[in-house]
Amino acid sequence: MSDEIRKNFASDNIAPACPEVLDALLRANRGPAPAYGSDELTGELERRFAILFERGLISFPVATGTAANSLALSALVPPYGAVLCDQSAHIANDEGGAPEFFTHGAKLIPIPSPDGRMKPDALRAAIELNRLGGLQSPPARALSLTQSTEWGTLYTLDDLRELTTIAHDGGMTVHMDGARFANAVAALGCTAAQASWEVGIDVLTFGGTKNGAIAAEAVLFFTPSLAEDFLRRVKRSGHLWSKQRFMSAQLLALLENDLWLDHARQANAMAERLAHGLHRYTAATLPYETQANEVFVVLPKAVTQALEDAGYRFYRWPTPPGVTGDLIRLVTDFTTTTHDIDALLAAL
Amino acid sequence: MSDEIRKNFASDNIAPACPEVLDALLRANRGPAPAYGSDELTGELERRFAILFERGLISFPVATGTAANSLALSALVPPYGAVLCDQSAHIANDEGGAPEFFTHGAKLIPIPSPDGRMKPDALRAAIELNRLGGLQSPPARALSLTQSTEWGTLYTLDDLRELTTIAHDGGMTVHMDGARFANAVAALGCTAAQASWEVGIDVLTFGGTKNGAIAAEAVLFFTPSLAEDFLRRVKRSGHLWSKQRFMSAQLLALLENDLWLDHARQANAMAERLAHGLHRYTAATLPYETQANEVFVVLPKAVTQALEDAGYRFYRWPTPPGVTGDLIRLVTDFTTTTHDIDALLAAL
Amino acid sequence: MSDEIRKNFASDNIAPACPEVLDALLRANRGPAPAYGSDELTGELERRFAILFERGLISFPVATGTAANSLALSALVPPYGAVLCDQSAHIANDEGGAPEFFTHGAKLIPIPSPDGRMKPDALRAAIELNRLGGLQSPPARALSLTQSTEWGTLYTLDDLRELTTIAHDGGMTVHMDGARFANAVAALGCTAAQASWEVGIDVLTFGGTKNGAIAAEAVLFFTPSLAEDFLRRVKRSGHLWSKQRFMSAQLLALLENDLWLDHARQANAMAERLAHGLHRYTAATLPYETQANEVFVVLPKAVTQALEDAGYRFYRWPTPPGVTGDLIRLVTDFTTTTHDIDALLAAL
Amino acid sequence: MSDEIRKNFASDNIAPACPEVLDALLRANRGPAPAYGSDELTGELERRFAILFERGLISFPVATGTAANSLALSALVPPYGAVLCDQSAHIANDEGGAPEFFTHGAKLIPIPSPDGRMKPDALRAAIELNRLGGLQSPPARALSLTQSTEWGTLYTLDDLRELTTIAHDGGMTVHMDGARFANAVAALGCTAAQASWEVGIDVLTFGGTKNGAIAAEAVLFFTPSLAEDFLRRVKRSGHLWSKQRFMSAQLLALLENDLWLDHARQANAMAERLAHGLHRYTAATLPYETQANEVFVVLPKAVTQALEDAGYRFYRWPTPPGVTGDLIRLVTDFTTTTHDIDALLAAL
Repeated sequence: MSDEIRKNFASDNIAPACPEVLDALLRANRGPAPAYGSDELTGELERRFAILFERGLISFPVATGTAANSLALSALVPPYGAVLCDQSAHIANDEGGAPEFFTHGAKLIPIPSPDGRMKPDALRAAIELNRLGGLQSPPARALSLTQSTEWGTLYTLDDLRELTTIAHDGGMTVHMDGARFANAVAALGCTAAQASWEVGIDVLTFGGTKNGAIAAEAVLFFTPSLAEDFLRRVKRSGHLWSKQRFMSAQLLALLENDLWLDHARQANAMAERLAHGLHRYTAATLPYETQANEVFVVLPKAVTQALEDAGYRFYRWPTPPGVTGDLIRLVTDFTTTTHDIDALLAAL
Repeated sequence: MSDEIRKNFASDNIAPACPEVLDALLRANRGPAPAYGSDELTGELERRFAILFERGLISFPVATGTAANSLALSALVPPYGAVLCDQSAHIANDEGGAPEFFTHGAKLIPIPSPDGRMKPDALRAAIELNRLGGLQSPPARALSLTQSTEWGTLYTLDDLRELTTIAHDGGMTVHMDGARFANAVAALGCTAAQASWEVGIDVLTFGGTKNGAIAAEAVLFFTPSLAEDFLRRVKRSGHLWSKQRFMSAQLLALLENDLWLDHARQANAMAERLAHGLHRYTAATLPYETQANEVFVVLPKAVTQALEDAGYRFYRWPTPPGVTGDLIRLVTDFTTTTHDIDALLAAL
Repeated sequence: MSDEIRKNFASDNIAPACPEVLDALLRANRGPAPAYGSDELTGELERRFAILFERGLISFPVATGTAANSLALSALVPPYGAVLCDQSAHIANDEGGAPEFFTHGAKLIPIPSPDGRMKPDALRAAIELNRLGGLQSPPARALSLTQSTEWGTLYTLDDLRELTTIAHDGGMTVHMDGARFANAVAALGCTAAQASWEVGIDVLTFGGTKNGAIAAEAVLFFTPSLAEDFLRRVKRSGHLWSKQRFMSAQLLALLENDLWLDHARQANAMAERLAHGLHRYTAATLPYETQANEVFVVLPKAVTQALEDAGYRFYRWPTPPGVTGDLIRLVTDFTTTTHDIDALLAAL
Repeated sequence: MSDEIRKNFASDNIAPACPEVLDALLRANRGPAPAYGSDELTGELERRFAILFERGLISFPVATGTAANSLALSALVPPYGAVLCDQSAHIANDEGGAPEFFTHGAKLIPIPSPDGRMKPDALRAAIELNRLGGLQSPPARALSLTQSTEWGTLYTLDDLRELTTIAHDGGMTVHMDGARFANAVAALGCTAAQASWEVGIDVLTFGGTKNGAIAAEAVLFFTPSLAEDFLRRVKRSGHLWSKQRFMSAQLLALLENDLWLDHARQANAMAERLAHGLHRYTAATLPYETQANEVFVVLPKAVTQALEDAGYRFYRWPTPPGVTGDLIRLVTDFTTTTHDIDALLAAL
C-alpha cells in the first residue's frame, strides 16, 4: 500500500480499500444494469453467501455498519419493544441513536459485563427484571451480541450457544453485530456457519468496510421469515442504491478466495504481535485479552503524549477508577505490517 | 462505453459510472485517512461547491437521492409539520415513505399541476387551506420543488422566484429536489447559483448518481442555520460513511472541468433528438414538453409491445383518461449516443 | 339540560355529558381500585361489549377519538405501510397528523368519492396502483372506513361487505372509524354486530364522547390476534389511565339500557327535521343526503352572515367550484330539541 | 371515604377522586362549550396557575402523567438528542417507552445516585462523557429531575439550583417530573414558585391524578418560547380532549383553597407516621429517608408474606445486594387515615 510506516492506529476504518475491491468496481462498470438490487452481481452475492454459510439465507448489502445493525434490529423488535445488549455495545454507545431511529424508539437495555462478553447469569437477570416490569417496561424481543467484542475479546462458540439458547427460550431472536465477524472467525479457526447460525444467530451483520471494502456490509437472515418486507425498510431509509451492483461487487471481491479471512488473519496477527510486545513493556498494562484486532493498553500519560508528539494516532478511553495512566486503543487492519508494529514498539 | 446499441431507456440510474469517477476512486485510495468526513477530499468538496455556487454553503454528501431528499426535509419541518410538493413529486410517490421516515411522520401535501410544474395560484390555495385547518392540519413549513420535474419539464427562473417568494412569505423554507439539477442547469443555460439560491432555494439536493457517479449526491445548505446538527441526522440514519473520502471523490470528479454539465448536455441533447424524431412519427403523441432528459410519449399498444419484443426497456405510466395507447417514459443519460437514438427511431 | 334555545351547531363535541354518565362517575368513586385497567368496571365493560356485539372481542377504552383511531391503525399497518381511506376521512384531514405519529409514518392514501362513501371501483383502482408502485410505494395493509361518513351519509351493509371483501382479498385488514357509529346503527336499524364484524370490520373505533360521554371511546378488536400487545401501545402513548375505572364507567353508562342508541336516535331525528325544513327553503341547497346527525347545506352568504349575527354557530366548508353561497355544516346531538330546530328554521 | 380500614398501599393512583373534583365536573356540565381547550375553564385554569406560581406561564392540561412528561420532553429535545435523568426516574423505567415514542427516539441517559437524588458531580461527569462522544452520542439537551423522587426523598431548593445551573451552563433545559410536586411543596414548606422556576425549572409536570383528580395533570411552561407549537403536539398524540373543560375543572378544584396542598400534607403526614412506627420495629430497615408520601422498608420475608395474607397490598422492589428480606414500598395518599396506619403498624 505504502512504504511509509503507519502511525495511525485510531481505527480499522481509516484504512483504504484493497486493490481487489477496486478492481471489482472497474469490472462491474460495464454497460447498463437493472437498478435497486435486481442486477446480476447482487443475486450472485446471495448465492456466494449461501455457499460460505452452508445454508440458504437472505442477504441485503448496505453501505454502513450503523445502517446494517439498525435495519436488522428494526426487523426484530417492535417500536414498543427492547433490545438487550452488552453495556459496551456499539449499537448502544457509538451509533448516534441510529437503532432508536430505525426501530422508532425501541429501548436498548445494556447489560453489565467485565470485558464486553455478556455473562449468562447477567442475561437471565436482565430478562427476569424486564418481565417483572410488565407494561411499564418495553418488552425484550431481541438480544444483540457483538463478535469480536468492543474490547477486542471473543465469545467462544459455547458461550454463544448458551446465550442464544437463553434468549430463544425467552422468546427473543438473536442479532450478531459482526462488524469484525471476520476477525472472530479467523481467530476462532471455525467456519462462518459454526460462528453464526449453528450457535443460534438469527441475523448477522457481516462487516466489509473495516476489512477492505469502500462501503459495504451485509445483513444476513438465517431465519427467512424475519426478512419479510426487509427490502422495504432498506428502501425507506435511503439505503437501497440504484446502482446496487457497485456495493455487491465489493463484497464479492472480499469473498473471492477467502480474501476476507486473509485480511482478518493479518490484522489479528499484527494485534497479537503488538500485544506480545506490550506485555514485555513493564509500564504497560493490558486490561483485556487481545483476541482479535484491537489492543487496549494502559500507558503512563507521559508515554501516550510522547507517542502523539511522534505522530501516532489512537483513541483514549475513559480510564477505569483506580487506574493511573491513559487507557488507549490500538487497532490493526489488513494493511498493518510487522514494520508498523515493530516501529511502534520501538517508539515505546 | 460499449459498442452495442443501447436499448434500455428505463432510467438514468441503470447507467454505469463514468471513467473519471472510477479514476477518482483509485486516486483516493491512498493510505489511511480520517474517518466520518474529516478527510481532505470532503473538505475540498465543500470548497468546490462554494466556488461553483458562488457563495458560502454547507455540503453533506450522501449515497442516495432518497436519503438526500429525506434528510433535507427532516431539517426543514418538525414531525408534526407538512411539506407542500407537486402531485408528481418523487418524494411523494417514489421513495417508499422515506420522507415520512426521516421526518418522523410529517405530512406530504400534494398540489395538482398539469405537467409537474406547480402553479403559483395552486400553491397559494394550498397554503390557505392548510391555514384554515388550524390545529387539525399539520402546518406547512416547507415547499419542495423538483427541477427538472418528474415529467421532464422545466421551471423557468421566474417561475421559481415566484413560487419561493410565496413560500417564504408563508413562513416556509424551500427545498429543491435536484436529482436532475444538472439537466436543468444545462437546459436553462444559467449558472448553478442562478438556478438555486438566487431564486430563493434554501436547500438543494444535488444529484450525482444519475449523472455519472456510483452513489453520490449532496445536500447543499445555502442558509447555514438550517444545517445545524445536520451531520447528526446523517450519522443517525447510517448515511455517514467511515470512508467518506470515497463518496466525496466521486462528486469532485463530476465537478472537475464541469463534467457534470457535459454529461447533462449529452443526455438532454439525446432526449431532444428523440423527441424531435417522435414528433414526426404520427402515431406518437408527446403529452409534455421535452426540456431535459426524459421523453414521455403515448404510442399504440402494438408498438410498445413490438419495442419490448425487440429488447427495448422502458417504464409504462398510467394512461391518462381518454387516451388510447400506452404512455411510456424514455430516459437518456450521459452514455446515450446518437446511434442509440437513431436505432430506436428506426425501430419505430 | 337547559331552557335556552341552542344556537350552537358547530359540532356534536360541544355538548355536555349526559346525567347518566356523571352518575356513573359518582358511583365509580368508591374506595381504592386496581390501576391501569385491572379494575372491575373495565372488565365488566368488555363483557358488555361482547354481549352487545354478540361475540367475543377485546376492548380498550381511551379518552379521545383521535387516539382511538390512530392506535387502531398502528396495530394494523407497519411503519412502512399505507392505509387506504376516503378523501374526506377524519384520519386524513382532521387529526393533526396523529395517524402518522402513532404508526411511525405510515402513509394515508386518500381515495376520491362524491359524498364520503368510497366506491368499490375506486378502491380496486387504488389497490392496483399501489401494487404497481412496488418498492416505491408504501404497501396498503389496511382500509379505514368512516360510518356514518364525514358528509353525514351512510354506507349500506351491502356497501360495507363489498368494500371489506375487496380489502381482505387484497391482504388488508379493515378499520371502521365509528365516532358516529351510534348514529349509523340507529339510522340503519340494524344490530351493532350487523354493522360491524358481520360485514367484515376487523377493528372498530366505538365513539362515546360525541354521544354523551365526557371523554370515552373504545377500540374493539373482533380479530383477537390483531390486539396482541395493544395495551402496550396504549400505555406507551400515555393513554392508559391509572384510574381507568372512570373511563370505563362512562361507556358502561352509555351501554346501559341502550342509552347510546337513544341518544343517537334523538340526534338523527333532529337532523332529519332540520333537513326537511331546509328542503322547503328555496334558497337552500343540500348537496348530500342527510342520513345521520350532520346537515350540509349551501346558503346565500347574506343568510349565513345573518345567522351568525343572530348568535348561531357552525363551521364553513370550502365551497365546491361553481357553487355560489356558503357551504355550512349543522350538527345535532342528543341534547338538541325540536324547539332548537324550529327556532333555527324560523330564523331562516 | 370509607369506614373500612385501608389495606392497599400499592400506589397513590389506586385512590378514588376527591368529592370536590366530582362536584366540579357536575358544575362544568352545563350546556355547550367550545371544544379543544377554547372553553372558559381552560382559560381560567391558566390564570390560576399563573397566580399560584406568581408569574406568567403557559399551561396544558393532559390526562396522564406519562403523557405530560413525554410531551414535555418532546418539546425540549430533538429526536436525535438525549435526556439526562436519575437512574430511578419514572420516565426511564416505568412509562413503557413513552418518552422514546413522543420524542421519536431520543435517548434517556440514566445517572447513578444512591437515593434518587442526582449528585452534581455525577451530572457533570455525564455531561462530559456525552460531549466526548461527539457524533456518536445523542447530544444531551435536557435534564429531567423528579421531585419528590422515586425513592420518596426530596431535593432541597439548593440542590435543585445547583443542578439546574449545571444543566443550563451545558446548554440544556430542565424538566421537572412533578407527579408528586404537591408532596414536595408541602414537605419543603415553600411556595410553588420557589420549588420550580425560581430554582431553574423550565417546564414542570404538575401532578393531579395521584392527588385527588380522576385524570388530570398539567404541563407548565415557564419559558414561553419552549411552548411553541406545543398544542399541536398535544393534538397529534390524541391528548387534546374535545370536551377539555372536564379536565380543566378537575385541576381548578384542586387549586381552589389550596386543596392540592391539603391533600399532600395528609399523605405526607401519614407516611411520616408510618415511618416513625417502622423505625421502632427492630425487624424493619428503612433504606431511604421518608420525606414525602412513600415509605420504603426492608422486612423479613415471613412478615411481608403475612401482611399479604392479611389482605395488605404493596409492591416489591428488587432487594439490594447483601440485604436479606423483602424491600417493599408503602404509599399513602389523601385518603389514608391514622386508623389505616395504626392498623398496619399493629398488624406488624
